Amino acid sequence: MPATVAVDGRGVERGLDALAAGVRTAIADGIAVRLFGDPAELGGIEGAEVVAAPDEISNDHDPVRAVRTRTDASVVMAAKDVAEGRSQALVSAGPTGATMTAALFAMKRLRGVRRPALALQLAVPGRPGPPTVLLDVGANTEVRSQDLVQFGVLGAAFARAVLGVSSPRVALLSVGEEPKKGTPIVVDAHAELASLEGIDFVGNVEGRDLLGSVADVIVTDGFTGNVVLKTLEGTAKAVSAAVGDAARSNPLAALGGLLLRPALGGLRREMDPDTTGGAILLGLRGVAVVAHGNAGPEGLANAIRLAAHAVDENAVERTGELLASAGATRGELGA
Amino acid sequence: MPATVAVDGRGVERGLDALAAGVRTAIADGIAVRLFGDPAELGGIEGAEVVAAPDEISNDHDPVRAVRTRTDASVVMAAKDVAEGRSQALVSAGPTGATMTAALFAMKRLRGVRRPALALQLAVPGRPGPPTVLLDVGANTEVRSQDLVQFGVLGAAFARAVLGVSSPRVALLSVGEEPKKGTPIVVDAHAELASLEGIDFVGNVEGRDLLGSVADVIVTDGFTGNVVLKTLEGTAKAVSAAVGDAARSNPLAALGGLLLRPALGGLRREMDPDTTGGAILLGLRGVAVVAHGNAGPEGLANAIRLAAHAVDENAVERTGELLASAGATRGELGA
Repeated sequence: MPATVAVDGRGVERGLDALAAGVRTAIADGIAVRLFGDPAELGGIEGAEVVAAPDEISNDHDPVRAVRTRTDASVVMAAKDVAEGRSQALVSAGPTGATMTAALFAMKRLRGVRRPALALQLAVPGRPGPPTVLLDVGANTEVRSQDLVQFGVLGAAFARAVLGVSSPRVALLSVGEEPKKGTPIVVDAHAELASLEGIDFVGNVEGRDLLGSVADVIVTDGFTGNVVLKTLEGTAKAVSAAVGDAARSNPLAALGGLLLRPALGGLRREMDPDTTGGAILLGLRGVAVVAHGNAGPEGLANAIRLAAHAVDENAVERTGELLASAGATRGELGA
Repeated sequence: MPATVAVDGRGVERGLDALAAGVRTAIADGIAVRLFGDPAELGGIEGAEVVAAPDEISNDHDPVRAVRTRTDASVVMAAKDVAEGRSQALVSAGPTGATMTAALFAMKRLRGVRRPALALQLAVPGRPGPPTVLLDVGANTEVRSQDLVQFGVLGAAFARAVLGVSSPRVALLSVGEEPKKGTPIVVDAHAELASLEGIDFVGNVEGRDLLGSVADVIVTDGFTGNVVLKTLEGTAKAVSAAVGDAARSNPLAALGGLLLRPALGGLRREMDPDTTGGAILLGLRGVAVVAHGNAGPEGLANAIRLAAHAVDENAVERTGELLASAGATRGELGA
């Protein structure tokens, strides 16, 4: 049976056409889509089951308050749809805070998880194979060391179940490779990760290793992760823009840019946020994907594919099993 | 009178030839150099005054312990040279921790400063004008909100005195523009920065703004700053490598790469760590520059130039004045 994904039909920055194209692509892949929003707007998307959701949560709302009170909002109804078993995964391109809150309230945390984390796949330019998983990229600005330990297990379970990495190498982001480098919380997390069962902990990595090949999963707090993620995006954009400026600076350079362009296609695709589709919230009893705010048709389709793939591979169940076998649930970690 | 710079003649990764070339360039600029190390090795550098320093602090030593006990180490003697007035600034390409510790112990902090910060200039690809100052990039992995406030003032004073920015825009690195975004420490620092006299605080910026034009000074803690800095370096390197791979992938692309190369020279120069020369330790009663570990001749010359320029512009005195007039000294900030 194909996975059924509950898709938030509101708050898509690029508009209804992008949403419709993304949903159609996912449906063509054999994924069942239940679409929450305005039936008058969404009716034209063939193959999607439209569910009327009259309200919308925007960036101006406080996420927690809005999710509690706006029970008719599209993202709240879609999350509830998953919790009640009519669909198996949530995808939203609306405000990140609202999506995370709606998912957390409706789906609840896996047993023993203190804080769910938002995980993003980072494609490494020029390196084939699965992307690196970076988490947390923004769910928790403050963490304890045992949260970082759990993030390591959540990331490893995701890399195994969804990316097919049989023995993911887990690393901790810090300011040096030595175990004692970093804040006290990072130093404690290093020691705890090193003692976990069944996790291949490879130690600390630095900022320059994010686009390298030394780890499959890189763990950090949500403040650092969010800053780093936006730094990556900003740098890639600034460099691309500067290369474009260079190519426009004189006719010979312009010819050079033209000749080089096809070979650069792979790089452009790798660095496009649409390629991975979005971030996934790990540690819940259900699948929730936060699509990139500015996702286009390809990005939205990939977000839905990611959600469906996590369902097909039983990512949630396998995460619970790994947490238990690694001794990384709330009761077992030093608190 | 030209500035006299005390240069650590040991621990230069790229070796003596790089050091000699860098020092010669600085001397040709009219800077007086006192060079600390092995006279047998350093004697051939014309124009530099060589001071025998028999010992060396390496990356294997604990910086604090080594600086305390190894009084004959080149970096310790060079820092003392500044403190005792024989030279006006310290430059070292040796281990960062040892350089910072030697500088702090010998030169002491400016009145009212709790924690000195390491500041780096970030060139913005394709944007002319002064670089953006990012601090702290690694002196303090943990900070209080009043430290972040002081970093803002230290960075603003540096941008004014050394970079010639008459009214530097100071921003705080966080996970969103709203004043309430970020950790409690960041939220408190935002409120305190907003109330400072004589500082143009423009609010929070995100990781993607590091290479933008929204601020002249960007403040963060030393953990985030260090991770972000290495992320920037790593991304630029990964993208350059991928562009190079693309140019080698077929003959037409290779021709394209060749034609584009001259126009890309400016970008390469902007993104080369050697262009800024190194990080400067702010908040001390003296000038100390940490050259990039892997600095070449140009990088070492630029590190010495940066130090001499800070001396010529009375950066230390002007920093003390701005701290006092902004009400940002230890006694005046909420503790």
